[in-house]
Amino acid sequence: MTQSDTSNRRIVLAERPQGLPDDNTLRLEQTDIPTAGAGEMLLRTVYLSLDPYMRGRMSDAKSYAEPVKLGEVMTGQVVAQVVTSDVKGFAEGDYVLSGSGWQDYAVSNGDQVLNLGADPANPSWALGIMGMPGYTAYAGLLKIGEPKAGETVVVAAASGPVGATVGQIAKLKGCRVVGIAGGAEKCAHVVDNLGFDACIDHKADDFAAQLKDACPDGIDVYFENVGGKVLYGVLPLLNPFARMPVCGMVAWYNLPGLPDGPDMGPVIMGTILRMKVKVQGFIIFDSFGPETYKEFAAEMTGWLADGKVKYKEQVVDGLENAPAALNDLLEGRSFGKMVVKV
Amino acid sequence: MTQSDTSNRRIVLAERPQGLPDDNTLRLEQTDIPTAGAGEMLLRTVYLSLDPYMRGRMSDAKSYAEPVKLGEVMTGQVVAQVVTSDVKGFAEGDYVLSGSGWQDYAVSNGDQVLNLGADPANPSWALGIMGMPGYTAYAGLLKIGEPKAGETVVVAAASGPVGATVGQIAKLKGCRVVGIAGGAEKCAHVVDNLGFDACIDHKADDFAAQLKDACPDGIDVYFENVGGKVLYGVLPLLNPFARMPVCGMVAWYNLPGLPDGPDMGPVIMGTILRMKVKVQGFIIFDSFGPETYKEFAAEMTGWLADGKVKYKEQVVDGLENAPAALNDLLEGRSFGKMVVKV
Repeated sequence: MTQSDTSNRRIVLAERPQGLPDDNTLRLEQTDIPTAGAGEMLLRTVYLSLDPYMRGRMSDAKSYAEPVKLGEVMTGQVVAQVVTSDVKGFAEGDYVLSGSGWQDYAVSNGDQVLNLGADPANPSWALGIMGMPGYTAYAGLLKIGEPKAGETVVVAAASGPVGATVGQIAKLKGCRVVGIAGGAEKCAHVVDNLGFDACIDHKADDFAAQLKDACPDGIDVYFENVGGKVLYGVLPLLNPFARMPVCGMVAWYNLPGLPDGPDMGPVIMGTILRMKVKVQGFIIFDSFGPETYKEFAAEMTGWLADGKVKYKEQVVDGLENAPAALNDLLEGRSFGKMVVKV
Repeated sequence: MTQSDTSNRRIVLAERPQGLPDDNTLRLEQTDIPTAGAGEMLLRTVYLSLDPYMRGRMSDAKSYAEPVKLGEVMTGQVVAQVVTSDVKGFAEGDYVLSGSGWQDYAVSNGDQVLNLGADPANPSWALGIMGMPGYTAYAGLLKIGEPKAGETVVVAAASGPVGATVGQIAKLKGCRVVGIAGGAEKCAHVVDNLGFDACIDHKADDFAAQLKDACPDGIDVYFENVGGKVLYGVLPLLNPFARMPVCGMVAWYNLPGLPDGPDMGPVIMGTILRMKVKVQGFIIFDSFGPETYKEFAAEMTGWLADGKVKYKEQVVDGLENAPAALNDLLEGRSFGKMVVKV
């Protein structure tokens, strides 16, 4: 069942998962194509972004955003093309960035939809390096992490869209950059193609010892997006006045309950105290305003044009393959920014 | 054995404690009075300050300060009087603030010694409201906590010298202030004498529920100085963009090892992420410079003179009683800033 001109496929949340999403979590449905009325436009999805935060929206635990309701289309950012438009500023054929979710078609009045123009060079990049993940990396690292030349910056999920960008920006700022990724292939990419100083495989038995060896002067900035054993390996290496921007904890997203003990609370809080660490959580569009976004867009456009920042995508073909691809992402089997070509 | 003109009593670290210090941890010794040479002065201790950080200095775990060596005099701030002086700016009879430690007499060249004058109104206050605890409360709350009028501020150890000051300053800034203390007497003092809006007894079985009831609008600033179950009761109540200055965790200082599970790491880090919390550890004289100290000294002097900030001391008589008094402090049995009249 591929995208068609006569019906709409959509993937809805069928039940809330315990742990990793399974076959019962999401359900593919077929409906009529919705009709755009006066002042509305019809959008046809081209690319759907897959991101770790989606696991959070499947849960009804207290969080920073409303959970997806049961039976509702899974939330997600897409790049779409305008099919018909009665909205000022949007013409047939324009590419747009929209929150249409996991489906082929959606109707919009243009609210919170960004027009990318009729012929963007890389339309899918609006979901990655020029969009939420790139902006998260930029603002989290520079505004909270405040890296200084000569300092050591550590980032996990280093081959992912956020981690790869964090590390490349930190290199541009003159830092020693150590990535953490899963497996030799990803680590080689991070060092050879992205220019990190080192990359440690978190699957290694002696991960903590390798990390220590790679950070002979300790760690000044840890960009936290995974939690778990990576966090616990980083804590003993933090330097006085270290900074830790926190934008995710993918290692802990699929927990059905709290992990067994011991309770690491005293280690986390004790390190924060003794080392005078600043730990700050952020949700990119809540925590930073339009001025920061403009600064990011201008600077990142320049870095990409100059080849100073490189960007890797993994394109999955077909909306029907999105659920399995999301699990690959949550379990560390993706490589680069994951988008679904719908 | 009381303070004498002919010999020096000193209390040294005899062995590193596991858990709470016991009879073997500290040892009272008698030595000759040291001799002040050229360019030096002899100081005679009047008041010794007892503070929670002292437990940390007994351990050789990696920390923000060097541990006390075995056989060495226990570290501590004192108010002393000058006996003889060959140091410019210090005359016989002057009161001084000095790091002489747990002993009757010490020799100093004047380095890092503050002259309080010949007749200070309240010499011991230099160890409390006008010294390290008062400054910790002031800078941690205002510079990291950044409380705004109408916000809710929570502070534990609310009858202690730091917590009591935090709460009173937060009231001056127009906040709703909820204290946490151990027992009905301390809680009554905090509300009736210090003017907090509420105070919860952390020994109550339904502590977390009481805390929630006392914070109907959530918590915007949590001044963290205890850790443990108080921290875990606070986390679910934190509002978006809450701030958490961290200056201590007395509930966890005497741990012989990590507490049993579950591991609360995902709860701590998850709250920081979802609620976009800023958690920042600080060590007062490392984290803030002389400008902040001047601002504190001027503002606090005014508040005390105007009766806007109240201060409570618990004076213990005799150096020989200091070890037992420190344990009272560590176990929450002190009431007000604890000083030993040597």
